[in-house]
Amino acid sequence: MTQRKETGVPQFDIDIVAAHLEACEETIVFKLADRAQYFANLRIYREGESGFKDEKKRSLFHTRLLFQERMDAQFGRFCVPEERPFFSRLPRARRAVHLPQTGLRLRDNNAVNLMRDIVAQYLALVPRICREGEDGHFGSSVEHDIFAVQAIALRVHYGALYVAESKFRIAPEKFTPLIRDGDAGALVAALTRKEVEERILRRIPEKVAAAQKNANPMVRHCIDPGAVAAFYRETIMPLTKQGQAIYLLHRLDA
Amino acid sequence: MTQRKETGVPQFDIDIVAAHLEACEETIVFKLADRAQYFANLRIYREGESGFKDEKKRSLFHTRLLFQERMDAQFGRFCVPEERPFFSRLPRARRAVHLPQTGLRLRDNNAVNLMRDIVAQYLALVPRICREGEDGHFGSSVEHDIFAVQAIALRVHYGALYVAESKFRIAPEKFTPLIRDGDAGALVAALTRKEVEERILRRIPEKVAAAQKNANPMVRHCIDPGAVAAFYRETIMPLTKQGQAIYLLHRLDA
Repeated sequence: MTQRKETGVPQFDIDIVAAHLEACEETIVFKLADRAQYFANLRIYREGESGFKDEKKRSLFHTRLLFQERMDAQFGRFCVPEERPFFSRLPRARRAVHLPQTGLRLRDNNAVNLMRDIVAQYLALVPRICREGEDGHFGSSVEHDIFAVQAIALRVHYGALYVAESKFRIAPEKFTPLIRDGDAGALVAALTRKEVEERILRRIPEKVAAAQKNANPMVRHCIDPGAVAAFYRETIMPLTKQGQAIYLLHRLDA
Repeated sequence: MTQRKETGVPQFDIDIVAAHLEACEETIVFKLADRAQYFANLRIYREGESGFKDEKKRSLFHTRLLFQERMDAQFGRFCVPEERPFFSRLPRARRAVHLPQTGLRLRDNNAVNLMRDIVAQYLALVPRICREGEDGHFGSSVEHDIFAVQAIALRVHYGALYVAESKFRIAPEKFTPLIRDGDAGALVAALTRKEVEERILRRIPEKVAAAQKNANPMVRHCIDPGAVAAFYRETIMPLTKQGQAIYLLHRLDA
């Protein structure tokens, strides 16, 4: 009964959800392209080399991510289900954040948190889009890393939560038995829409190429459209589906 | 003598400086386009409406900028001459930042700080690129505001410092008397290269259009190429030249 009443709310209209995911594509492409203006600077990912006098263990990247999340937490970022932190024990929100009812059936927002995988796979992408070596812009590089990671993470978590709930509402009879069986693999298979994935994988390289079309390659490093498409295929899409399965397995009253 | 020895170092090769400024164009376009995915949300710029329980005066935008600059200061951002803060009394850098010799002839990095104007003029741009009204994404909007402001500010300050020093080194005999006279207006006139400005103003709308070319306008709000070109013409270019004149008037040993 409750189900039926809630079906049809705009945040679970699958076309609106898909449109939002599509709009995230430029944002991710832009942030990767901006990161790639700096060299790979791989030293910033090495533990113990943050350069902070009182931070002996974390890398500069992880130190920056921690500071960023501490700031973001105070602004209420992680009150939003699709904004997930990498770190735990962050400060409380200092702002009153007024959230609309999401309609998600999630007891714990952190049940779907794929940040470890997102960060690990993003770090593997860096050498594929940036020039090898060091240019000394360590601070700017980690800053742009965080922009990119957060944009990717928002896309993955939003897709995980809202696509899963939308698909469940369209066909509860299809998903409920798979959830009861706790069968993550079968859920991922049932959630997969090959033709949608193929459309995304055609769009991504075109968007990368368009974003750089008027860039002067003598002055601006251009990223490989294929590398971004591969990142979508190998990371963003599988993690989104994994998140959908986790969401459904945790879904209340399923 | 010192002058002559330093002429020809790559950071003051006017073509290299211009190339770097050109590469900033995509970065600025991308950050404005991403900000415009959120509505104008003008409430975030109103004093006393930050929503922070312990921040009664500042707007949410200014609160975010303050937190951001406090974080950035600890990472050493403002040790770099072209990265200027809006706020003063920021914490010290906690990282050892190894800066190459810039070669700039500046005693006080903050002598050229145009942040007040940049922020004011950026805030006037927001309603020209964003949809009117509110979508409730206040935190995301200020976050993207800061990304955009910092990208614009880097372009303005880098251009101010490095273009001015490069032009001075090419023709010290032209600039030295104007500096001695303290004539900012004559300096701006002497620094102006109309044909360069026109080339930039032709490029910008093309870059905005290219960046959005494959975006689906049903799902992603596209910004007006003319508004960004106007911002370059009315804000970025005049402030850069104003910064150049200030730099030269403060230049040591001129």
